[in-house]
Amino acid sequence: MKVITGVAKKETLEISEILAREMDGCDVRVNGAVHTIRDMGDVAFIVLRKREGLLQCVYEKGLSEFDLKDIREADTVEFTGRVNREERAPQGFEIRIRTVRILSEPAEPMPLQISKWKMNTSLEAKLNNRAVSLRNVRERAKFRIQEGITRGFRDFLYGQGFTEIHTPKIGAKSAEGGANMFRLEYFHRPAILQQSPQFYKQMMVGVFDRVFETAPVFRAEKHNTKRHLNEYTSLDFEMGYIDSFEEIMAMETGFLQYTMDLLNREYAADLEILGIETPRVDSIPQVRFSEAKQMVAEKYDRKFRNPFDLEPEEEYLIGQLFKEEYDADFVFVTHYPSKKRPFYAMDDPEDPVYTLSFDLLFCGLEITTGGQRIHDYHELIAKAAARGMETEGMEHYLAAFKHGMPPHGGLGIGLERLTMHLVGEENVREATLFPRDLSRLEP
Amino acid sequence: MKVITGVAKKETLEISEILAREMDGCDVRVNGAVHTIRDMGDVAFIVLRKREGLLQCVYEKGLSEFDLKDIREADTVEFTGRVNREERAPQGFEIRIRTVRILSEPAEPMPLQISKWKMNTSLEAKLNNRAVSLRNVRERAKFRIQEGITRGFRDFLYGQGFTEIHTPKIGAKSAEGGANMFRLEYFHRPAILQQSPQFYKQMMVGVFDRVFETAPVFRAEKHNTKRHLNEYTSLDFEMGYIDSFEEIMAMETGFLQYTMDLLNREYAADLEILGIETPRVDSIPQVRFSEAKQMVAEKYDRKFRNPFDLEPEEEYLIGQLFKEEYDADFVFVTHYPSKKRPFYAMDDPEDPVYTLSFDLLFCGLEITTGGQRIHDYHELIAKAAARGMETEGMEHYLAAFKHGMPPHGGLGIGLERLTMHLVGEENVREATLFPRDLSRLEP
Repeated sequence: MKVITGVAKKETLEISEILAREMDGCDVRVNGAVHTIRDMGDVAFIVLRKREGLLQCVYEKGLSEFDLKDIREADTVEFTGRVNREERAPQGFEIRIRTVRILSEPAEPMPLQISKWKMNTSLEAKLNNRAVSLRNVRERAKFRIQEGITRGFRDFLYGQGFTEIHTPKIGAKSAEGGANMFRLEYFHRPAILQQSPQFYKQMMVGVFDRVFETAPVFRAEKHNTKRHLNEYTSLDFEMGYIDSFEEIMAMETGFLQYTMDLLNREYAADLEILGIETPRVDSIPQVRFSEAKQMVAEKYDRKFRNPFDLEPEEEYLIGQLFKEEYDADFVFVTHYPSKKRPFYAMDDPEDPVYTLSFDLLFCGLEITTGGQRIHDYHELIAKAAARGMETEGMEHYLAAFKHGMPPHGGLGIGLERLTMHLVGEENVREATLFPRDLSRLEP
Repeated sequence: MKVITGVAKKETLEISEILAREMDGCDVRVNGAVHTIRDMGDVAFIVLRKREGLLQCVYEKGLSEFDLKDIREADTVEFTGRVNREERAPQGFEIRIRTVRILSEPAEPMPLQISKWKMNTSLEAKLNNRAVSLRNVRERAKFRIQEGITRGFRDFLYGQGFTEIHTPKIGAKSAEGGANMFRLEYFHRPAILQQSPQFYKQMMVGVFDRVFETAPVFRAEKHNTKRHLNEYTSLDFEMGYIDSFEEIMAMETGFLQYTMDLLNREYAADLEILGIETPRVDSIPQVRFSEAKQMVAEKYDRKFRNPFDLEPEEEYLIGQLFKEEYDADFVFVTHYPSKKRPFYAMDDPEDPVYTLSFDLLFCGLEITTGGQRIHDYHELIAKAAARGMETEGMEHYLAAFKHGMPPHGGLGIGLERLTMHLVGEENVREATLFPRDLSRLEP
């Protein structure tokens, strides 16, 4: 009987394998997509795009046993050849090609010049040709960094005793936030797409104490800005048995420290391609909402109209102020007014006009909203009632509290926003593989 | 200025911390939810439910500085007390309680007896009281195992050079599989929820060579069975530069090997709670579709009507046959008829009636569908045309092929199905935190 016993070593080598083994002078087999061909007459440089980077291969008349014309850009190929130390090549070595096997050929030439270092192309064109534009080495490096963030989030939280959960994205229509939700029909019943795993992760605090989820959320908001998406990836956690809401901020800081470390350790090549350094996260300033508002109004001589929330420009200026005065890229703004926070937010016992909540700003952009939640059933019911809210449809959420919940709190991080500022972009679509916005439903 | 510098050590200790430090006789602080109280007169056993397990604490008149009546089941509490070695306690030690701080109290008694070892409760009742029923130690252990599977999938694939991607769940209505999709309105345009990340992950093979995603998928199928969900978590990967479709099965086998190892190493406590052992995955038999069909028909003397697919009973019997004859829990069934596979499946060049595809059966249940895909643009177009398919709406998918794609293939694994049989359950809802089926949209 035929059996499968696990992953066998491939005959083809990856860049890191050749580098690790010091294979100068050895015969190897490599594959990849033909990124560029530069024909110099008797010699041609054929650069392969591999998952770990670009690999310079050299076609030499006489040595290479095929015709250069047999190879075209965007072919995928397998070469045999000899490793040759070459300081000027991107990896410090090149492959002197002997034979080729063509694995596949394109049907049409490229619509975009992906082999340029920086693609001189509009965002619109890049998004319209997503399967191709992401083949650019800089474009794809952003999403390697995005992987590092998600990976750092999970690995750090596993180490802190969190359990990963998967909560449903289709739900019944509930009283909370009926607006801004996409609606659908679920076997002849009205349903919505969840705009956050908030209720579920809180319910699961009663089960696992500490939980997290990394999953899509859906917001039917009609914002058309550089920072809004209608579907995005939310990094959520919720933790029980907290002594203060500062523990939540400490956990987020720990995540950022762990992740910047991980990026520098395992994603150094991608950071280098993008020409970026990770921001300082050893200590993150915290400032009260009302103080931050005042500091900005004074320093920049501005008046802001909304006393209950921060306008985007105000957030931006808070970021600027803390960068200028403390060289801080991140700022925790705490104690948001109760009026602008959801009913489940815990009011500050010392001044119930405000809540034990926070936003984390990164370069003046909100990337996290979090805080302590009410854990007492009667208190939760009372606050909902005081707001004139219907609790119909929230029975399952409330049941968790009815039967006992520890003090807890948590947060949600917008993955694409965090990625965007880490990789030095200004539009969140640049940090999204396939963005969904008011006008974009494809690809 | 106040700053946050990262995670501080908590004063309260977790079970593993006490075990690691050999703290017999030491004074400690612990917290948890009151799982049970057994009053023996002068002494009472108060069992705390903590994320790592149950912790036996002892109330002793005279020593404990509070009234036993102050404590009720489902309170969350913080105790101070002394560690006492005790072989009969679940962790090998207990805490002799000195003081208590009540952190929270329930508003009503429990609707289910969660402190029983096995809850003698219907699935329906467990699902209707999900926030409470999952507090049962056995119930929650299933989802720790589920975490281990997802974690193993990602960690193994990171190590194999895969990049994690996030693809959109809301999409435009496309020609492929318009049936079985949930429909919604997206800013006055018709949209659907993706039933698989298939097209996106293939497009990303052209970018990263090897990609994976762990995310929800949505199927509007009207099946009401023990093995169907309308929303589930799909573990997907897709890999380029394959030499044969067996490489995909080898990668899945590698994932299973890595994951069973991880479960035995880091989830041993949960395996023990559930009383289960991980299945053998050192070698997984593979059998051709047509052979498997014949073997089952002969051995069990059955006739099956559908020559192009496996009926559920047939799958079950294949599982039984391979268990009986080879002691195998897993079987790869390969070379499914082209007729029943999607248009992008690669036909077997040696016999194009069949495809280079496979399902993985676990205990006779399909948990994976995978295979090699067509990578040549013209071939893909031709196969779609031969089926009379419209390619309208698939332009972005096809563009990836038009501009060159390596030979590739991949698979999708149903996380809940895999979890179900690993933890010894027979209904996929038992392995889903909040299942979505024909009748269930809440909690």
